[in-house]
Amino acid sequence: MKLDESARALIGKGANATLVTLNPDGSPQVSVIWVALQAGEHDDELVIAHLSDSYRKVRNIRRDGRVALTVVADPDGPTLREYLWVSGTARIVEGGAPALLRQLSDVLTPGSGFPPADAPEGFLTRITVEKVGGVGPWAQ
Amino acid sequence: MKLDESARALIGKGANATLVTLNPDGSPQVSVIWVALQAGEHDDELVIAHLSDSYRKVRNIRRDGRVALTVVADPDGPTLREYLWVSGTARIVEGGAPALLRQLSDVLTPGSGFPPADAPEGFLTRITVEKVGGVGPWAQ
Repeated sequence: MKLDESARALIGKGANATLVTLNPDGSPQVSVIWVALQAGEHDDELVIAHLSDSYRKVRNIRRDGRVALTVVADPDGPTLREYLWVSGTARIVEGGAPALLRQLSDVLTPGSGFPPADAPEGFLTRITVEKVGGVGPWAQ
Repeated sequence: MKLDESARALIGKGANATLVTLNPDGSPQVSVIWVALQAGEHDDELVIAHLSDSYRKVRNIRRDGRVALTVVADPDGPTLREYLWVSGTARIVEGGAPALLRQLSDVLTPGSGFPPADAPEGFLTRITVEKVGGVGPWAQ
């Protein structure tokens, strides 16, 4: 599915997100990552860069592509913060990590010099969005 | 297990967290919630309040207590934000929600008047912490 304009605006040119993958025993594994929105083959996809595929999240996705993630909005709302959740199916593709990390770094940590110039090509997680919800205009 | 001092300081008197539960088909379900640290029977427990048990997260925990959560630190770090992840086992107990929500509201959204005076006693999720990680002094 395509994300609506409010969700696209929240993610913008890059955002911190909590990504959930599934461990071999089915228990949830979580990490905080940078996420970007990119045009996919059919719809937009959420994309995450990894310099190595030895991370547990990458190994988990290769075994079971079911993922979910949250992006929390700033600033605080009146009670709970506004946030977006997305669930979908992820796949790992080779290459492209430094370019995406550089683009996200320019937005999220300008001047950090991350990633280094000699970073490996790495891997991307590409997520097809299946459901969207949360607290905010994107939650219908 | 007991959380170390740096993790206790991050959660403080209450924090916004992303909570992961497992749906009936094993896929991950996520939501952003308020979490508090409280003394449990043996170790500290992470506690979340619910005014109703019709929420999917409550129904999920009753069926499968395996949960994970992340708490993201402010402000931004040099590259990725510091964050804490915790995995553990959750159980639902009856009552106590308005008192906890009032305590957390005083910290997270002072002056919001949440929860209302006539709020039902609700339910608490109590989480026994089993593993801790992330990016920050709590990750060893």
